[in-house]
Amino acid sequence: MTKVSPRTLSGFMELLPEQQMKMERMMEILRQSYSVYGFTPLDTPIIESAEVLLAKGGGETEKQIYRFMKGDSDLALRFDLTVPLAKYVAGHYSELSFPFRRYQIGKVYRGERAQRGRFREFYQADIDIIGDGRLDIINEAEIPAIIYSTFTKLGMHKFRIKVNNRKLLNGFYAMNGMSERAGDIMRTVDKLDKVGAEKVRQLLIDEVKMLPCKAENVLDFMAICGTNDEVISALERYRGMDETFDLGLDELRTVTRYLADFGVPEDNFAVDLTIARGLDYYTGTVYETEMTEHPEIGSVCSGGRYDNLAGYYTDRQLPGVGISIGLTRLFYVLNEQGLLSGEQVTSPCDALVIPMTEDMSYAISAATALRSSGVRTQLYCEKKKFKAKMSYADKLKVPFVVLAGEDEIKEGVLSVKNMLTGEQVKLSPADAARHIASAVALKNSGAVIKE
Amino acid sequence: MTKVSPRTLSGFMELLPEQQMKMERMMEILRQSYSVYGFTPLDTPIIESAEVLLAKGGGETEKQIYRFMKGDSDLALRFDLTVPLAKYVAGHYSELSFPFRRYQIGKVYRGERAQRGRFREFYQADIDIIGDGRLDIINEAEIPAIIYSTFTKLGMHKFRIKVNNRKLLNGFYAMNGMSERAGDIMRTVDKLDKVGAEKVRQLLIDEVKMLPCKAENVLDFMAICGTNDEVISALERYRGMDETFDLGLDELRTVTRYLADFGVPEDNFAVDLTIARGLDYYTGTVYETEMTEHPEIGSVCSGGRYDNLAGYYTDRQLPGVGISIGLTRLFYVLNEQGLLSGEQVTSPCDALVIPMTEDMSYAISAATALRSSGVRTQLYCEKKKFKAKMSYADKLKVPFVVLAGEDEIKEGVLSVKNMLTGEQVKLSPADAARHIASAVALKNSGAVIKE
Repeated sequence: MTKVSPRTLSGFMELLPEQQMKMERMMEILRQSYSVYGFTPLDTPIIESAEVLLAKGGGETEKQIYRFMKGDSDLALRFDLTVPLAKYVAGHYSELSFPFRRYQIGKVYRGERAQRGRFREFYQADIDIIGDGRLDIINEAEIPAIIYSTFTKLGMHKFRIKVNNRKLLNGFYAMNGMSERAGDIMRTVDKLDKVGAEKVRQLLIDEVKMLPCKAENVLDFMAICGTNDEVISALERYRGMDETFDLGLDELRTVTRYLADFGVPEDNFAVDLTIARGLDYYTGTVYETEMTEHPEIGSVCSGGRYDNLAGYYTDRQLPGVGISIGLTRLFYVLNEQGLLSGEQVTSPCDALVIPMTEDMSYAISAATALRSSGVRTQLYCEKKKFKAKMSYADKLKVPFVVLAGEDEIKEGVLSVKNMLTGEQVKLSPADAARHIASAVALKNSGAVIKE
Repeated sequence: MTKVSPRTLSGFMELLPEQQMKMERMMEILRQSYSVYGFTPLDTPIIESAEVLLAKGGGETEKQIYRFMKGDSDLALRFDLTVPLAKYVAGHYSELSFPFRRYQIGKVYRGERAQRGRFREFYQADIDIIGDGRLDIINEAEIPAIIYSTFTKLGMHKFRIKVNNRKLLNGFYAMNGMSERAGDIMRTVDKLDKVGAEKVRQLLIDEVKMLPCKAENVLDFMAICGTNDEVISALERYRGMDETFDLGLDELRTVTRYLADFGVPEDNFAVDLTIARGLDYYTGTVYETEMTEHPEIGSVCSGGRYDNLAGYYTDRQLPGVGISIGLTRLFYVLNEQGLLSGEQVTSPCDALVIPMTEDMSYAISAATALRSSGVRTQLYCEKKKFKAKMSYADKLKVPFVVLAGEDEIKEGVLSVKNMLTGEQVKLSPADAARHIASAVALKNSGAVIKE
C-alpha cells in the first residue's frame, strides 16, 4: 500500500504534548482572567457566509482570506474575532443586554506568506465591551487593569501598557492644519522607535512634504513623556485650540486617574503619544503592550475604542472598546525565547500506577481511588518488564509512580515513588492521593511564564 | 449604506450567552474528566492537506467534506478527530511514548444536508489510547470507567454503557458459515430495536437470503441478555467452535471482570450482542452509550478497539481504543429535552458593582478587591438611572449587586444585595467577597445536567 506522508501544513501550529500542556495552561489563565472581569464566553462559527464576513470590505485582509464554494454557498473562514462579534451583536441585538461584555478565544485564518513565526491558523484571545448608543469612558479606563491582571497571572512582570488617545492625535493634527495628511504622518511617526527622531524629521519633510516648522511641532509633541502627571501637564499647554483635542485630553485624564484604584502600578503603564494603531475605526483610547526586555517582539496585546462596531450590518450605533492577544504568536515567541517555565507538570498524569501482580484488581482499585480524589492517574496496562515501565514514566516526566505488588496488597497500602527525588513511601490509598495532590499542586503553583 | 444581513449559516451552532455558559461548563467537565484518567490534551489544525485528510479514502464522508483550493494547495477541513490523530501519531512517532493517551475536544466539519438538530460544524470530544505494535485488553476494560465517570460528573445517571466485541461477532458468523454476509447481517440486526425480531427474521431470509434455520441461529444469539455472568455463561456454550470467537469471549470476560474495581456499577453497563458499530476498522470491544429514558437520541458516546490506526501513513502497527462524544449534538438534545440545569450561575459576573457617587474611586477599588478574591465582577460604568442599572442586573440574572454610595464610603463597607432573595447586607470588601463566593459556589455545585 502506498503511504501518504503524514505532514502538517506550514503555518499551522501543532504542538507536542509537553508544549501543548503549557499552551492549555495559558488558555486556562486567559479564560479565568477574562471571566473575573465579568466577560462572558462566546463561541461563533469558524465558517461564515463570505458576504457576511466581507461586508466591511477587506483591504489587505481580503487577499489573505480562505474563501471557497460549497455547493452554491460562497463561504469564508473568519480572519479575526471582531467581524464575527459585530455579526453576533447585530444579529442578536434584541436578545442581549448592553453593555455587552464578551470574551472569545478561538482560531482565525489568514493565508499569509509562510515564514518562521508567522501562522495561517492562530488563536486570538479577545475581549470587547459593546455599548448600545453610548459607552462610558470608564470602560476605557478599565482595560489596562485587565491587561495588567492577565499578564501578571501568566507570570509576566516586565511589560508596559502603552496608551494613547486618537482624539488627542486627530485634534493635534487639526490644530496644525495637518488633518489630511494625518495618516501619512502617523505611519512615519510610527518609525520613531526604529529610525530615530532625526530620520523621521527628514521623512516628514521629504516624503510627507511638511514644512520644517510643522515637522518640528510633530516631533515636539511626540517627544512628550514622563509620569502620567507630567505628560498631562505638558498636554494641557495645547488646551483650547481644538475641541477634539480637549475631549481627548479629558478622556486621557480619566483613564490615568483611576489606574491605582484599578490596581495598575504606574511602572507597568505609560502614556505614549507615538502609538496610533493603524486601523481607521479606533476613535478614542488605544492600547499596546510591550515586553520591556523584548521590544523586538512588538505589541503582545493591543486594541482600542471604536465608535461603530457593526455599521455594515445595522443602523444602530454600537460603540465599544476591546483588546486582543495574538495567543499563538505569543506562545511561539515565549517558547523561542525560553520564557516558558519548565517547573510545572506537563505529563499526561500525576501518578502512573504500575501493577506488579497477574490479577489487576488491587491496582485498578488503587487507580480508581486516586482518580476519585482528583489525582490525574494512568494505569499502566501493558505486559512489559519493570524497567520498561519505569523508563516510560521517566520519558513522560511523570512526577509519581505508584507500585501495587504483593507486599502492598497484603498490607493494604501503595508504594509511592517521587520520580524527581527518588524518595519512596508506603501509604494508604487515601494518604497516597493527598501526598501526590499536594506535591503536584506545589509544582503547579508557579507561573507559566518565567522571566 | 446598504446593510448586509448578519446571519449565521444553517447547521452552525451559535449560542446566546446563557446557553454558552452551560456549554462551557460541559466542556470543562470533559476536560477535567479526561485529564483525571491520564489523557493529555491535543490540538491539531482544522485545515489539512486534502491528500493527507483523505488518505484513507472517504466513502460516505468524502462527499460531505469541505474541500477547496488556496493558491496551489488542495485543502480540506477535518471531518473527525481520528484521522488527524492518525496523522499526528504517525508523524510524531519517534517523539511520543506509547501507550499514547490523548484527548481532543474540537470542531469538525461535515456538509450534511441541513436539518433540525443536524450540524455542519460540531464539537467532538474524543479520547484514544494508542499502542506501539500491541495494546493490552485492560485498556478496553478501562473505557467504560471513563464513560461512567464523565457522564455522572455531568449529572447524568440514567444511562447504560452497551458493550460488545467484534471478535465474538465475527467468530459467530464464521462458525455459521456466514462471514461473507456478515456486513448485511449486522446492518439488518441493527434494526432489532426498531422493527422487532419477527421483522428482522423476515429480512434475513428475504433480503440477506439466509436459510430460516440460520436466521434463527442469529436471532437466538442476539437475544442473549441478562447480567454479565448470565451473558457470559450463555456465550460459553459456543466455545470451541471458532478461535476468533473464543478470543472475543476471553476479551469480554476481562472487560466485565474488572468493572467493579474500575468503579462502574453493573446497572450502568450491559453486554449487548446487537451493537456492532458499522465502521470496518473496529476489531475488538465496541461501545455505545444510551440514555435509558431517551433511547430515541441514539448513542451519546461510542467507540471501540481498532488494530491499525494509521495504515495509510505508516507501516507501523498502531492498535488503539477510543471513544467519541458528539458534544454539539448532545448539548442540542439535552437543551431540547429540558435536561440542562437552570440552577447554576450563567451571568457574565457573580457581582455587579454599582457606583452611586460621581467619583468612582471607591467603587473601582471595591471591584478590584472582589476580583482579587476571584469573584467574577463587573463594574457598572454607564451613567443611567438606578432603576435601569438594577434592571440590567435582573436581565443578566446577576446573583449579587454591590452598591457603593456615600454611606458605604463613609463606613468603609459595601452593600451586598442577593438578587434572588432580596436580602441586603453591609459588609467589608473582604467579607463581601467571601459572602458572594460561597453563595455562588453553592449555586454552582450542582450538576450541568438535571435528569
